[in-house]
Amino acid sequence: MKIQPLGDRVLVEPMKDDEQKKGGIIIPDTAKEKPQKGKVIALGTGRIDDDGKKVPFNVKKNDVVLMPKYGGTEIKIEGKEYQIMREEDILAVID
Amino acid sequence: MKIQPLGDRVLVEPMKDDEQKKGGIIIPDTAKEKPQKGKVIALGTGRIDDDGKKVPFNVKKNDVVLMPKYGGTEIKIEGKEYQIMREEDILAVID
Amino acid sequence: MKIQPLGDRVLVEPMKDDEQKKGGIIIPDTAKEKPQKGKVIALGTGRIDDDGKKVPFNVKKNDVVLMPKYGGTEIKIEGKEYQIMREEDILAVID
Amino acid sequence: MKIQPLGDRVLVEPMKDDEQKKGGIIIPDTAKEKPQKGKVIALGTGRIDDDGKKVPFNVKKNDVVLMPKYGGTEIKIEGKEYQIMREEDILAVID
Amino acid sequence: MKIQPLGDRVLVEPMKDDEQKKGGIIIPDTAKEKPQKGKVIALGTGRIDDDGKKVPFNVKKNDVVLMPKYGGTEIKIEGKEYQIMREEDILAVID
Amino acid sequence: MKIQPLGDRVLVEPMKDDEQKKGGIIIPDTAKEKPQKGKVIALGTGRIDDDGKKVPFNVKKNDVVLMPKYGGTEIKIEGKEYQIMREEDILAVID
Amino acid sequence: MKIQPLGDRVLVEPMKDDEQKKGGIIIPDTAKEKPQKGKVIALGTGRIDDDGKKVPFNVKKNDVVLMPKYGGTEIKIEGKEYQIMREEDILAVID
Repeated sequence: MKIQPLGDRVLVEPMKDDEQKKGGIIIPDTAKEKPQKGKVIALGTGRIDDDGKKVPFNVKKNDVVLMPKYGGTEIKIEGKEYQIMREEDILAVID
Repeated sequence: MKIQPLGDRVLVEPMKDDEQKKGGIIIPDTAKEKPQKGKVIALGTGRIDDDGKKVPFNVKKNDVVLMPKYGGTEIKIEGKEYQIMREEDILAVID
Repeated sequence: MKIQPLGDRVLVEPMKDDEQKKGGIIIPDTAKEKPQKGKVIALGTGRIDDDGKKVPFNVKKNDVVLMPKYGGTEIKIEGKEYQIMREEDILAVID
Repeated sequence: MKIQPLGDRVLVEPMKDDEQKKGGIIIPDTAKEKPQKGKVIALGTGRIDDDGKKVPFNVKKNDVVLMPKYGGTEIKIEGKEYQIMREEDILAVID
Repeated sequence: MKIQPLGDRVLVEPMKDDEQKKGGIIIPDTAKEKPQKGKVIALGTGRIDDDGKKVPFNVKKNDVVLMPKYGGTEIKIEGKEYQIMREEDILAVID
Repeated sequence: MKIQPLGDRVLVEPMKDDEQKKGGIIIPDTAKEKPQKGKVIALGTGRIDDDGKKVPFNVKKNDVVLMPKYGGTEIKIEGKEYQIMREEDILAVID
Repeated sequence: MKIQPLGDRVLVEPMKDDEQKKGGIIIPDTAKEKPQKGKVIALGTGRIDDDGKKVPFNVKKNDVVLMPKYGGTEIKIEGKEYQIMREEDILAVID
């Protein structure tokens, strides 16, 4: 089973943040708009710009990203949780 | 009887999700914006872009799609329920 | 007496849906945004796009259409009820 | 005394609808956004589009139009009531 | 002392309407968005359109205009009251 | 210490209005959107328009301007109060 | 570990303002939209304009900036607090 997101959406698998690990990213509980780590599983078909050209994605498959917790739509495939969200809403890529 | 959606709208027949089937997509009841599976029955006449050209659809007839539950307009034809919704609101195609 | 809608508006005569007829379109009472059947009586003068060209209509006179119930403005001409609404708000053409 | 509306505005004199006359337009009291008949008295200076060209009006002087009751600004000149409103808000021309 | 409005703003001096004078413009007290007469004292520096060109004003110095009462910003210069408002918000020129 | 505003922002030092001086600008206390006098201290880096060109400012350093009281962001540098605001929000230049 | 912000976002490390230091920037507690000092740690991948070209940033790495306190998203990396925010929301660069 394969999920092909449409337009500028991406399929992301949320990751547990290793808060215990030294140097990990800790998202403070008090943050107004709490972000979340995730792995990019699939890119969308791409957004078409005003000149009819496809806009390339800034993220790629397997990228670890920082995303707002409630910016996407939750689904569960074969027992795992995923989010479908617009690339525009992803905050950053983590190397 | 045939329904021809207008502009960038599509006619979709909602499908029951086989939650029991192994590997099926399960939409958690707690999801904020609960999505729903459906089959594309008819494409619209197409959206016209700023240059006067028709924008092609990313979905095609018989595609199984993931869509927000309350994103479209419900109608019933010959006893079956359908949704008319904008393609933009469809989240993903499922293979 | 003739009504010439302006811009991208159309004049539509609402139709009673033959819910009893087998195969008719039934609009469920529980639908969030309840649609309604109607017949196109007159097209508007047409919308002008950014390049100064008239955008053609996707509906034509006598088309039977599916429209949102409260998307237009109600008027009564010679005893009959009509709606003036934007074509953009019409959901579909029914053949 | 002459009123020259600015931009895409028009000066309209509201008319009493001859509801008694057979075949007249009757605006139902229950209508959500109640329209009103009026006569176009003066056209505005015209809207300038993105290419710097004037957009022609779809209505002309003396046209009888159907307009939303509270879409314009009321003024009284030499004892008569008028409305200044944008052409975009006029629903239709009545022949 | 000179006030040079910026962009598409104009400086207007509100005028008392000669309601007693025969043929004067009377603004009904019941009007939803009550307009007001005024004299144009100074034009702004002009709005720049998308092609980088200045958009000419439709009003000129000393024009008597009809304007919404609360559409601008009130200031007092040398004892007189003025309004600084966008030309777009001026309804009409009175000849 | 130097403050370089970004984009179409300007740094303005609010000035006390000499209400006592004959001919001064008096901002009535009853004004709905009370304006305020100020001196332009620094221009921003400039807004980039759709063609990639910098849009020139209509105000220059040391201009005395009229600005809405709550349109900007207050900061204090070396004991003096300043406002950082968008040029678009400045009402007029006072000569 | 490296954070690569996406699009027109930047990664900023908030700085304590040396309010005691003579000549420091003091943000009054009463300011409506309280700004905050910070150091730019990383620039985003850049915003793509309507012509498909990347828009350059006005800030650069290590710039000290003035930013609205609640304009971004808070994260904590290796024990330090950061903000991811759009460059558009940064008010000024401090030299």
